[in-house]
Amino acid sequence: MKTRAAIAWKAGEPLSIAEVDLEGPRAGEVLVEIKATGICHTDYYTLSGADPEGLFPAILGHEGAGIVLETGTGVTSVRRDDHVIPLYTPECRQCKFCLSRKTNLCQAIRATQGRGLMPDGSSRFSFDGRPLYHYMGTSTFSNYIVVPEIALAKIRADAPFDKACYIGCGVTTGVGAVVFSARVEPGANVVVFGLGGIGLNVIQGAKMVGAGRIIGVDLNPGRIEIARRFGMTDFVNPNEVGNLVDHIVQMTDGGADYAFECIGNVGVMRQALECCHKGWGQSFIIGVAAAGQEIATRPFQLVTGRQWKGSAFGGARGRTDVPTIVDWYMDGKINIDDLITHTLPLERINDGFALMKSGQSIRSVVLY
Amino acid sequence: MKTRAAIAWKAGEPLSIAEVDLEGPRAGEVLVEIKATGICHTDYYTLSGADPEGLFPAILGHEGAGIVLETGTGVTSVRRDDHVIPLYTPECRQCKFCLSRKTNLCQAIRATQGRGLMPDGSSRFSFDGRPLYHYMGTSTFSNYIVVPEIALAKIRADAPFDKACYIGCGVTTGVGAVVFSARVEPGANVVVFGLGGIGLNVIQGAKMVGAGRIIGVDLNPGRIEIARRFGMTDFVNPNEVGNLVDHIVQMTDGGADYAFECIGNVGVMRQALECCHKGWGQSFIIGVAAAGQEIATRPFQLVTGRQWKGSAFGGARGRTDVPTIVDWYMDGKINIDDLITHTLPLERINDGFALMKSGQSIRSVVLY
Repeated sequence: MKTRAAIAWKAGEPLSIAEVDLEGPRAGEVLVEIKATGICHTDYYTLSGADPEGLFPAILGHEGAGIVLETGTGVTSVRRDDHVIPLYTPECRQCKFCLSRKTNLCQAIRATQGRGLMPDGSSRFSFDGRPLYHYMGTSTFSNYIVVPEIALAKIRADAPFDKACYIGCGVTTGVGAVVFSARVEPGANVVVFGLGGIGLNVIQGAKMVGAGRIIGVDLNPGRIEIARRFGMTDFVNPNEVGNLVDHIVQMTDGGADYAFECIGNVGVMRQALECCHKGWGQSFIIGVAAAGQEIATRPFQLVTGRQWKGSAFGGARGRTDVPTIVDWYMDGKINIDDLITHTLPLERINDGFALMKSGQSIRSVVLY
Repeated sequence: MKTRAAIAWKAGEPLSIAEVDLEGPRAGEVLVEIKATGICHTDYYTLSGADPEGLFPAILGHEGAGIVLETGTGVTSVRRDDHVIPLYTPECRQCKFCLSRKTNLCQAIRATQGRGLMPDGSSRFSFDGRPLYHYMGTSTFSNYIVVPEIALAKIRADAPFDKACYIGCGVTTGVGAVVFSARVEPGANVVVFGLGGIGLNVIQGAKMVGAGRIIGVDLNPGRIEIARRFGMTDFVNPNEVGNLVDHIVQMTDGGADYAFECIGNVGVMRQALECCHKGWGQSFIIGVAAAGQEIATRPFQLVTGRQWKGSAFGGARGRTDVPTIVDWYMDGKINIDDLITHTLPLERINDGFALMKSGQSIRSVVLY
């Protein structure tokens, strides 16, 4: 079949919209009509050429929602007309990782996904007979996609696609880091570095679980208003205080119980660790640093009880936890509407990237 | 009163044995007759002058066991003739840290202890009218000491002092790191970097809780025999393998569930993190690095689920957990006897330091 899609031909060039050939689902695979997709920094990271694992030509996009059109043989967990969110972190429920109960990082199809291919080692996309790479196992910048069954979360049918798609990455990454990775307890003090989309989702996750003080740290005072609306109790502009770590330690009577780095800056990652409370403060890295960069601190920080951890896809198991987060949205426990600042047709997807780079948007969503 | 003690007059010089003046216990304090004390690397670290917080002249030593001789007013938890282990990490059960249930790092007397003084800001030791500093709140290189009540673990009377003293630091640091800090579960794969006294205690802790493979890493093959006796299942000499991290990841089918750095080398600390299993491997820093040194890694190591932590005094709450470890020894669950390779009178304490520096001893114990 044919599908409209935005193709990334080369690093550093705008996406180009075209009709692409899409093969139907093979065994264990599912054809999905994507109804909406967010535009995320990770798409830009790859498109820019900074991602050392980036492959071209590819169809980017990893934050979508849609409807099942057709299932390949052997598919049992979803069927035609089911509403779904494609998962760049799948959940096979059979690999060592899924069965460990200690991580959400299912590795069942990691190798082929990393090479831009379906689990059988081939691509379903082509243009003029030339294969195009899949991206993060999802490629939601295509109106129709084929994905493995284990990479689909079935969600309730009354959730609007134009909001639910954001749960495919940003919402889950932020809210999940609080709920699943850190398991923040009521009353705990939380510090959030970076008040972009991820940071705001961390803030509303912290609010949802009843955190005590929720301190937002950002250089941009333009984010204060929305961050407060999402649950931030205190704002710190690093430019307006002396030593940022000392300032936060003083504000919190000893340090943060939980800190989250939502930027991808290795210097800030160090501050996010060192502002943690002696004895138990936990710092979570969510942001993606530039290739090759390293974090550093004195070992004494850890010996005296601070813990350095990370969170990927919010620690959420895609098929198990993503439908729950959709429920939280539908129940009004989390706010997605105010984070989606722009919607665009696929033809204007490059404008969405421009809005992100300029900091004007929190999230732009493409509606098919 | 007078007490025999080894005085550290200056960094880098041998200890000198002398009669020292000791004031009796004030309110909340206890006079203890020390019967035996281990000689630990930390004493050497301070004596060498490398410890930036080292104070002189002082009476070093922090790994002792003895008997209560006299209690100051208000002391209720110990009385004359009780057998005790002095605690450089006290347990007040009232401070924010003790009440957090998340750490063993009681801070009740941290400030004065760090300044070599009793909680009221004075010293009980003097020589020719000149005050001598206390050390780590314990100063077990003195035959008699005065310590705060909250810095004494009451232990059973049938435990021999010459073995129980080692529970005051090394045994608890190693065994406790496994049991209290890491909570290693049965079947887990454990990697131990450095097979000195701490490393061997980590190994026997791992064996006690039913760990799966227990891999010891050391440059010295002379430690293989005793490490196997303590529970090591596999030995790796870094000089005999190519890439140490890759080697351990292969041996363990993906990496360590728990790794422990028992050396104090920041390069090894990085290896101990990076050999951990993706998704859940936890690396604990136990060793003390030289002042000013830093640990580093790529943040991706943490984002993909490895956790970087530390352990001080094995995560053990001194008054609560140390008596339990004494029970484990008396019940034959852990082996202390084979780790105490040398005993000496106080007059030969400098020989004990020499044995440690040359690597001949695992632990030397001074018997008063």
